[in-house]
Amino acid sequence: MLQVLISAGAAVIGLIGVGFLIRGILKMSSGNELMQEISKTIQEGAKTFLHREYKVVAILVVVVAIFLSLAPFIVQGALVNWQTAIAFVIGVFCSALAGWIGMSIATRANAKTTQAARQGLRSALNVSFSGGAVTGLSVVCVAFLGLIGVFLLFKGKPIIINGYAMGASLMALFARAGGGIFTKGADMGADLVGKVEAGIPEDDPRNPAVIADNVGDNVGDVAGLGADLLESYVESIIATLAIAASIAVISLTYLPFYLAAWGILASLIGVGWVKMARSKDPQTTLTRGTYISAALMIAGSFFIIKYLGSAYGNYSILGPFWAIIAGVLSGLIIGEVSVYYTSSKYKPTKELAISSQTGPAVLVVNGLALGMLSTLIPIVVIAAATLIGFFFAGMYGVAMAALGMLSILGITLAVDSYGPVADNAGGIAEMAHLPPEVRQVTDKLDTVGNTTAAIGKGFAIGSAAFATLGLITAYRVTIGDVSLSLADPKLMAGLLIGGMVPYLYGALLARGVGKVAFQVVEEVRRQFKEIPGLLKGKAKADSSRCVDMAARGALRNMMLPGILAIVFPISIGFALGPIALGGFLVGSLVVGLPLGIQTANTGAALDNAKKYIEEGNLGGKGSPAHKAGVIGDTVGDPLKDTVGPSINILIKLMSVISLVLAPIFVVLH
Amino acid sequence: MLQVLISAGAAVIGLIGVGFLIRGILKMSSGNELMQEISKTIQEGAKTFLHREYKVVAILVVVVAIFLSLAPFIVQGALVNWQTAIAFVIGVFCSALAGWIGMSIATRANAKTTQAARQGLRSALNVSFSGGAVTGLSVVCVAFLGLIGVFLLFKGKPIIINGYAMGASLMALFARAGGGIFTKGADMGADLVGKVEAGIPEDDPRNPAVIADNVGDNVGDVAGLGADLLESYVESIIATLAIAASIAVISLTYLPFYLAAWGILASLIGVGWVKMARSKDPQTTLTRGTYISAALMIAGSFFIIKYLGSAYGNYSILGPFWAIIAGVLSGLIIGEVSVYYTSSKYKPTKELAISSQTGPAVLVVNGLALGMLSTLIPIVVIAAATLIGFFFAGMYGVAMAALGMLSILGITLAVDSYGPVADNAGGIAEMAHLPPEVRQVTDKLDTVGNTTAAIGKGFAIGSAAFATLGLITAYRVTIGDVSLSLADPKLMAGLLIGGMVPYLYGALLARGVGKVAFQVVEEVRRQFKEIPGLLKGKAKADSSRCVDMAARGALRNMMLPGILAIVFPISIGFALGPIALGGFLVGSLVVGLPLGIQTANTGAALDNAKKYIEEGNLGGKGSPAHKAGVIGDTVGDPLKDTVGPSINILIKLMSVISLVLAPIFVVLH
Repeated sequence: MLQVLISAGAAVIGLIGVGFLIRGILKMSSGNELMQEISKTIQEGAKTFLHREYKVVAILVVVVAIFLSLAPFIVQGALVNWQTAIAFVIGVFCSALAGWIGMSIATRANAKTTQAARQGLRSALNVSFSGGAVTGLSVVCVAFLGLIGVFLLFKGKPIIINGYAMGASLMALFARAGGGIFTKGADMGADLVGKVEAGIPEDDPRNPAVIADNVGDNVGDVAGLGADLLESYVESIIATLAIAASIAVISLTYLPFYLAAWGILASLIGVGWVKMARSKDPQTTLTRGTYISAALMIAGSFFIIKYLGSAYGNYSILGPFWAIIAGVLSGLIIGEVSVYYTSSKYKPTKELAISSQTGPAVLVVNGLALGMLSTLIPIVVIAAATLIGFFFAGMYGVAMAALGMLSILGITLAVDSYGPVADNAGGIAEMAHLPPEVRQVTDKLDTVGNTTAAIGKGFAIGSAAFATLGLITAYRVTIGDVSLSLADPKLMAGLLIGGMVPYLYGALLARGVGKVAFQVVEEVRRQFKEIPGLLKGKAKADSSRCVDMAARGALRNMMLPGILAIVFPISIGFALGPIALGGFLVGSLVVGLPLGIQTANTGAALDNAKKYIEEGNLGGKGSPAHKAGVIGDTVGDPLKDTVGPSINILIKLMSVISLVLAPIFVVLH
Repeated sequence: MLQVLISAGAAVIGLIGVGFLIRGILKMSSGNELMQEISKTIQEGAKTFLHREYKVVAILVVVVAIFLSLAPFIVQGALVNWQTAIAFVIGVFCSALAGWIGMSIATRANAKTTQAARQGLRSALNVSFSGGAVTGLSVVCVAFLGLIGVFLLFKGKPIIINGYAMGASLMALFARAGGGIFTKGADMGADLVGKVEAGIPEDDPRNPAVIADNVGDNVGDVAGLGADLLESYVESIIATLAIAASIAVISLTYLPFYLAAWGILASLIGVGWVKMARSKDPQTTLTRGTYISAALMIAGSFFIIKYLGSAYGNYSILGPFWAIIAGVLSGLIIGEVSVYYTSSKYKPTKELAISSQTGPAVLVVNGLALGMLSTLIPIVVIAAATLIGFFFAGMYGVAMAALGMLSILGITLAVDSYGPVADNAGGIAEMAHLPPEVRQVTDKLDTVGNTTAAIGKGFAIGSAAFATLGLITAYRVTIGDVSLSLADPKLMAGLLIGGMVPYLYGALLARGVGKVAFQVVEEVRRQFKEIPGLLKGKAKADSSRCVDMAARGALRNMMLPGILAIVFPISIGFALGPIALGGFLVGSLVVGLPLGIQTANTGAALDNAKKYIEEGNLGGKGSPAHKAGVIGDTVGDPLKDTVGPSINILIKLMSVISLVLAPIFVVLH
């Protein structure tokens, strides 16, 4: 156990780093009074929403915790009990805490980035990246410390510890779904009336929904993304622990802790490098920082595995090392593929933009096709990494590949979360009527932010697939490794039904966004009509009503899909048994993976195609191509920011619930 | 063998029925000179395209046949040989023949339907339904006779007979993909310039692409759909035969022949009933006809199974009967669900139409969500039917459920194929400037045709899923029933890659449509500009150039996806072996099924939402809602008529190729 305690040291060092970053951000200036006021409003909006979201989740957490505690009384002999419930609650708490820290700092860093942009690109990048790094590092450090706590508390019993992952997963589901509906409902609502009907530019302070849009960036893309990846991170470690327990070689249980600890330090070094770097191109700086961490991770894991690992079965001591390499490289490749398909620097999105000249319908069809096409390489890479992991280290290797991919989450998440900060900073520059050269700097940061967001989405989906693969393997081990053969019609029925759930879930979320957007549209129209002088800039918009509306709509519309995601696997497990449930999980993974990649890349490519036109290509702003581009972007928005990301969580959550409850289904069937 | 010969009698009776139907159609009047000319042009266009399509396919057929014949020399001990090649060629031929008959009659029945519409709804329905029934009955009769021929020729050896299904499948792939690209490329091209730019109505003879659009209806929706369902039909029987061979109870081998024979007669009776019926509502008449055939099928199969079946293993003699019921009912339920989700009579499409008032983007997002939501019931029904089939009769029962669903294909396909005839008839009425009351009759037929098309698409996807399930079961039997366990990482890798292929394939087809549409748009624009007086109706459009362009574009763009569909399973089989290939097939089914349902229903609902607005709701033609509706319809078109239907074939073709080549992969691995 001492070994586990030592690895906690890395997380503590990481948190000290977070402290320094926060201090650095807080002492920066937030600019003039107007900027401070706007930033404050966004802060308040985000805080209020998270408060309400956490309250709703709290009720559900109590229900689930009671259910887990009572499980041994309902189903005799099931190994789930009050300890699982405690681990579960700790998991929820850690996720909520990390989300809160990230959001609090991101909503403060936005105006400070705008202010720093007055001194040039480099300082603005520095502040916004620090904001992102706080999210990235606090997510991994809090998650890792929580896991260590639970591990020590329950003496490493896998079935209990799984509860921790389930807690992180449940929180992530609502953070992603709620945040996703909020952010896109507000965004679409703002655009549909502001840009399309009233003809005022994006981020114009006259539009009452603009603040809600900025709040959405923080609750969706910072808190939501953080919770999503925190879950993947925890699950990749948990899956390794569960499999290690079945192999019963003790050093294999400690290995994931050492590797994760080293991953935190590698990320910290990468973050430090980015902050020191003096390159002029933000994209290059961020990419190099990530690659440095990746290289450190690979090098370090060689020594860790060589000196602290063990050979087992037919596998050599270095087996897990090859799995780690496969995982780290997969993550990088998937990110690069996302960039290729969605950046207007490359052919696919350029061609997509050109097709907007034939009108919005052709653009949307081509956008959907682009997303579908972009599934090829990531899925082949994931399949290959699975085979490599298994070849070198068996089931343990598959889980190790997942761990490898997520080990440097500290820096990859830092890079992803910098985007929304830069996006907000641009919004504040616009709303505070700052000179155009400031906006130019924030625009440049924002463009890079779009690319890193694409990488982040690719990474989130890829890591979700890996984490789920690990969980499914752990599930198989937990139900006693009975043969899950395709010859069993229950397995086949499970596969088919599991494959339908991501569609059902995605449909409910997309409809949720539509409903919220509709309400926001009505409210903005009402304010334009009823507040005299608003459109002329002589009166102030009532932005808090729009925030409130988006918040309420998001909370209402996340409930049904959220509960479905919990109830579905439980019903299948009870009704058709653990074998059908195994098929169900695999089915949802097999469908969720391409659907997640497609929606993310379709949306990002449509967004960037529009931006490409706005840069003056194909007729520029106001041209027919641009009008088509705006429609395409609006179609892509809920796909990339609500449906796609939530599907990651869906497949993970259903797997972790099944893993936790597997002992019950085994007893019953 | 005598038993098999006797069942051929039913097919002969069916063909006699087809002869009567054709005679009845041909002696009807084709109307005035202009109508005859238009019909003739459509006929010629369709004929020319099929000719060229068949020529392209012929080359590929020769290549594949040579490969099959040489297989025993390349891979020692593989059971695939020149006999497989012969069966394969016969399969291609039968499918092409049935497609040709259906297309020839449908392109003649169109003007005759227009002419009959002058005498009222009932006579017009009679002619157009006869046209559809020729397709429906000749598909099942030709397919069945061909199968019987191959069965007798090769003394019932399953591995050889599988070649017949592979032939039907290959032809279907190109008929669907080529026809699908042709029809939607022409349709979108016609609409984008005609309706949107020039502001002339649909089917206006001034639009040079209108004839191509009408040709497309015949090559896509008649020949393509026919080949698609012919394949499912053949494969459902073949799968039963392969499984029966492994059980080695001889009467189980004959049972599918008796049941298919009775299904032809039941369909014939249903067709006769529709032609006799005197109800005023075409929808009711068609539905009742289908239900009568279904009831006859269920009743007849009870006696056939009771007196000619056998008990085997732990299953009672009546086991397959319950599977048949599950199959027949599944087909009907899936059809009804499609209608519910896509007809503007019901809530989902009505609400979709209402959302068009918020603009095209929200409409498209809601349309996608509607399609995603509509996957729930069909997939649960298919999963349930699989479990029921297995529960009562094991693997044989699963194949029997598929057979049950397809047994009354004669009438279900008749109902589906009536739609394009009615659609064409409406176009001819418009182009020949017939009085509005004629157009009213054809419009009414067309509306019903849209509903039956939705049923047909649902049925095609459901039956493809069933046929694939049967084929995968047969595949498992053929590779020696080795355990296809999820514990095997190769199986998992196969599942993931298999799940990606429908996306890749769909993307290539959607892009193909986009390219063809773009060329047609350019050509129409050129003609409007260069032919003086065309837009004023004083000069004739050069429609043959548009037909030629769509044909060439379709043939060019179907090649890559078509070859991919053949090469993919073969590569997986060679590189990763039969277990990975098993996973691959299941993966493509699990993903293809919801994707197929979604695309079909999204497209149909968007189409009907537009029609609902055009009927005068929500502001009617010319309103902002209508403009959004037209965009939505154009997005949905390639989804429902190209991507969705082709995915059915993809999953079937890959399964049947794997089944045929399984002996090779087994020897190699």
